[in-house]
Amino acid sequence: MTPARGDHAARRAEVSAAVWRVLTERGFAGLTLRAVAGELGATTGLLTHYFPSKRALLRYALDLLDEAHAARPRPHTEAAGPGAEGLAALRAALLDILALTPESAAGGRIWVSSWDAALADPELAADHAARYRRARTRMAGFAAAAQDRGELRTDRTPEDLAGAAQSFVLGLVVQALFAPEEFPPDRQRQLLDGFLADLTATS
Amino acid sequence: MTPARGDHAARRAEVSAAVWRVLTERGFAGLTLRAVAGELGATTGLLTHYFPSKRALLRYALDLLDEAHAARPRPHTEAAGPGAEGLAALRAALLDILALTPESAAGGRIWVSSWDAALADPELAADHAARYRRARTRMAGFAAAAQDRGELRTDRTPEDLAGAAQSFVLGLVVQALFAPEEFPPDRQRQLLDGFLADLTATS
Repeated sequence: MTPARGDHAARRAEVSAAVWRVLTERGFAGLTLRAVAGELGATTGLLTHYFPSKRALLRYALDLLDEAHAARPRPHTEAAGPGAEGLAALRAALLDILALTPESAAGGRIWVSSWDAALADPELAADHAARYRRARTRMAGFAAAAQDRGELRTDRTPEDLAGAAQSFVLGLVVQALFAPEEFPPDRQRQLLDGFLADLTATS
Repeated sequence: MTPARGDHAARRAEVSAAVWRVLTERGFAGLTLRAVAGELGATTGLLTHYFPSKRALLRYALDLLDEAHAARPRPHTEAAGPGAEGLAALRAALLDILALTPESAAGGRIWVSSWDAALADPELAADHAARYRRARTRMAGFAAAAQDRGELRTDRTPEDLAGAAQSFVLGLVVQALFAPEEFPPDRQRQLLDGFLADLTATS
């Protein structure tokens, strides 16, 4: 890495790319200043300019993960279209979390990997909790609309439906990461559709 | 730690206790030879006798986790009684996984923490996958019995019911660890019972 004075943004992008490569290859367990320095061809000393502590590096990596997550492809949400509401929108959001493609599996792998690091630090854990809360709030909105449309059962609150759905897909991603041959994309889809069918309004 | 020649088993127990303390306090992310040495009041040099590599330490810790898991209290399974079968046995097994007490939350925390470490190493990941497969097989047995007794719907295979149930509780534990105030024990129980009610045979 050649220091390029005045080009702070470019340097920052290089550092971000190096942190991201370490994350995708080794997970949070392998995220060290030394590993990032290795990716950059820089010294650990230079890196402490950016990350004065392991914690600073962790927080930076979690922010990167959050950005990548926000910008990730959401093929099911896109396929459902901008006008999707209710159950269709909920199902698309849940499908976009599952490990259905190599890319989404890699993304899920990094999220699962981040839990240990986040749980070890109260502030980072609070950040992560807020991220999941936002996701549940969004899903609860879809669930409430689905209830209004008569698509989902009304004997549960939208919040309970969202909490249950988020639990289901997070756990399914964990299972699929450990046993991809037992949980291929088709089976993940089928299990999710079974789960949603059970929440369907039966009148 | 005073070296006690000839007392290999006692030394091993001391090492195990130190590894376990590090795991419960810092998770797998904090599991280093240095941290274990600190707990023992020993040098890292001495510890390399037991753990020639970080990987050896990780594997040892995963084995300890497995032993602790096998020996853990299972209050719901015990309350259900040795003759419990079918849905009652399945429900008890699932309740015993949830983070319903400080002890079970601490246990869940260590499992979640182990996923990153295990996923980073193909052999350790295969070991973990085998553990979850055994758990699913056991639950599939309960589910099959529940189907025979007319307690669970028969339009899914016992394996699918078990895979769905395991996904649900693993994800719920993750949510409860990050947001214990939103997922107190009563709500975890209620969400699980809602999930199981949806799988109930409706004839």
